[in-house]
Amino acid sequence: MATASSSSSLCPNRAFSLSTSSHKQLASLVRFPASTSSISSPSRVCLDSKKRNFSVRATVAPVMDQSISASSSAAIPTIVEVDLGNRSYPIYIGSGLLNQPELLQRHIHGKQVLIVTNTTIAPLYLDKTIWALTEGNPNVKVESVILPDGEQFKNMETLMKVFDKAIESRLDRRCTFVALGGGVIGDMCGYAAASYLRGVSFIQIPTTVMAQVDSSVGGKTGINHPLGKNLIGAFYQPQCVLVDTDTLNTLPDRELASGLAEVIKYGLIRDAPFFEWQEKNMVALLARDADAFAYAIKRSCENKAEVVSLDEKESGLRATLNLGHTFGHAIETSVGYGQWLHGEAVAAGTIMAVDMSYRLGWIDESLVKRVLKILQQARLPTAPPETMTVDMFKSVMAVDKKVADGLLRLILLKGPLGNCVFTGDYDRQALDDTLRAFSKS
Amino acid sequence: MATASSSSSLCPNRAFSLSTSSHKQLASLVRFPASTSSISSPSRVCLDSKKRNFSVRATVAPVMDQSISASSSAAIPTIVEVDLGNRSYPIYIGSGLLNQPELLQRHIHGKQVLIVTNTTIAPLYLDKTIWALTEGNPNVKVESVILPDGEQFKNMETLMKVFDKAIESRLDRRCTFVALGGGVIGDMCGYAAASYLRGVSFIQIPTTVMAQVDSSVGGKTGINHPLGKNLIGAFYQPQCVLVDTDTLNTLPDRELASGLAEVIKYGLIRDAPFFEWQEKNMVALLARDADAFAYAIKRSCENKAEVVSLDEKESGLRATLNLGHTFGHAIETSVGYGQWLHGEAVAAGTIMAVDMSYRLGWIDESLVKRVLKILQQARLPTAPPETMTVDMFKSVMAVDKKVADGLLRLILLKGPLGNCVFTGDYDRQALDDTLRAFSKS
Repeated sequence: MATASSSSSLCPNRAFSLSTSSHKQLASLVRFPASTSSISSPSRVCLDSKKRNFSVRATVAPVMDQSISASSSAAIPTIVEVDLGNRSYPIYIGSGLLNQPELLQRHIHGKQVLIVTNTTIAPLYLDKTIWALTEGNPNVKVESVILPDGEQFKNMETLMKVFDKAIESRLDRRCTFVALGGGVIGDMCGYAAASYLRGVSFIQIPTTVMAQVDSSVGGKTGINHPLGKNLIGAFYQPQCVLVDTDTLNTLPDRELASGLAEVIKYGLIRDAPFFEWQEKNMVALLARDADAFAYAIKRSCENKAEVVSLDEKESGLRATLNLGHTFGHAIETSVGYGQWLHGEAVAAGTIMAVDMSYRLGWIDESLVKRVLKILQQARLPTAPPETMTVDMFKSVMAVDKKVADGLLRLILLKGPLGNCVFTGDYDRQALDDTLRAFSKS
Repeated sequence: MATASSSSSLCPNRAFSLSTSSHKQLASLVRFPASTSSISSPSRVCLDSKKRNFSVRATVAPVMDQSISASSSAAIPTIVEVDLGNRSYPIYIGSGLLNQPELLQRHIHGKQVLIVTNTTIAPLYLDKTIWALTEGNPNVKVESVILPDGEQFKNMETLMKVFDKAIESRLDRRCTFVALGGGVIGDMCGYAAASYLRGVSFIQIPTTVMAQVDSSVGGKTGINHPLGKNLIGAFYQPQCVLVDTDTLNTLPDRELASGLAEVIKYGLIRDAPFFEWQEKNMVALLARDADAFAYAIKRSCENKAEVVSLDEKESGLRATLNLGHTFGHAIETSVGYGQWLHGEAVAAGTIMAVDMSYRLGWIDESLVKRVLKILQQARLPTAPPETMTVDMFKSVMAVDKKVADGLLRLILLKGPLGNCVFTGDYDRQALDDTLRAFSKS
């Protein structure tokens, strides 16, 4: 059972402010190659939080510029260590980290790198990443493979494109795969690295909240099967995770909210003070306050790293990170991969897990209300799609990885905020009641 | 560098002889279910060593019967331990081991088993294996998936059939995959087990000499890519390896000889006394003398276990087990998977490695002659197919897993019998000369 752990200071709800002078000052500090300056345009974005997407501008005019802003406050990355003996690795968190080639290069040992990315991220950050890998390091040969974007492509067919590219490029055992993108890219690239020549090095450069706070950390890699999510994969740890928070500047609002579902999860299962912080700072997070995000990412990674260090292969504790995921996977699989974002499905699934916990008498009604409120604040769904039926849930949940000898084990909240259990020892009636309350029979 | 280690007593070149009385006596000893007695027909085979294949007889008439004969001499298995810390496991070697359910069952922890086998082996040993898994253990549910037979099917498409079956059967993390077949089945089943739900237990029941002396031991799993052998896979150790030498009774002569290529390899790279034993006992091995085979399998597994224990992930020493394999893989890939058996290609590749070692001045001519002679005795090819060109070799060898930072490292003999090196430090001219001597330019 997971228990609450303490967290530290609150993050001020700071608005963006950047004087022209500090902007100029930074321009000389940022080590960015002249030859690829046009590429840097992705980080030159015009923020309009009322629109669903950012508008990307190719100009270098001094518009409001979070990436440069953030570079000023976080030139030295925060480092969270994932402690796994001889497979330990650092998570670097900060603004402008892709402008610091030495961070990546210290983890590249051979002469060959394969960047795995997708059609959305490649135009934004591929050249910048290639620069970070090769600047002052001309012996490294960088190849890249650009996959279609979306959970619906997280399958064997797409994975084979990575192997094809690696083999055609004659990459050898000393090469390094670099995952540049969100959770789908990280999971696929990691599994490809685990399997290529029976295992090569890999690095995670997550570019979504979802990947930065959760999926890039801990070594879970894999692909989906038509009958269920992540059923094929490996536990395989990266050499490092590099979280350049500037990459969030280009993230659509919907993707940003999706990632917050996992942030909220950490609070619920093991970190009450973090949940309370989120209740106070959700507005700042949605407004993309840089400091608020830096704190949310750091605290999430600390929670994840601690759990993974204690239970790498998910024999117990680690399963608690899947709060809401069993219901959520059923939604993703049933409505079709890519229709609902992972975090959206997890949010609806969290509400269902909380509902079931309440039906079992394991939590107070006040906690139910707080979870509902924070998910609504985060603009996340709080119920599955109307098309879902009880049988659709049951059919997918039967192949969940947490089934053991026919018994479905679930993560449920139990006790005060910040406490949960991973158990198959619950009244089946409560599960049936929850499924019926949230879906058609 | 590997050095020679000592081996023990020679095996007498014993002819098969079995009196009717001892045969009857055994019938009461063998624990085989009445309900599946018709299944036991595969082990009731009529040996004709002059023919390429055995003729399988469905009768239980007392024909010359190696399986029963062998059961008498090896009811207690020889155990070779693979020492890998908390992933250590035993290799059980002996006759009639599939008649001893307790051997397998002590390694099955959940309630679900998936047997992965092929269309050749299933009619011979599937029911027997199901019996061994379920006898006195009715709570275990056994599923099976029967794949097409042959190296040409060792690919992603066939692998997916294993995942499909596992998921349709709702197998959970506590299940066990059982590889029942030769090297192709073992490699695919092992990789499927490594990847299914990010890793489930698996057991190897090798049914060919190749698998019994080499591929089932040491945790190398994987599939082929059209451009190269075993390029996709995992290091993943089984719970145990069960070598029932009776299964060799149904093995075609060509397959049997193929496996001998790996037996010969152990002698050449690290075990001079074993090589000398083989020189004296090749006739007995080809005549399928049970005791000779029991010794050859045991000594091969001891060599393999020792190497794997010292270097599980092939950072150096373990690569020496690939003597002849770099040239051999080029042959297999170029002529098309399944055209040449693995051991046949390895035999030709071994001759090429030996030729190159001699050109480099690293071994005496007498050793070249001994290798040629023993491979000829074993009825193995001593040259690649005539269709091979120098470019075909070079093209495939360029994607070999032993290439590091562009340099092809090879296993070559150096010094007296039983010594080899794994090195990229050799005169390129010698490699070119060998390739030209054995293939068209």
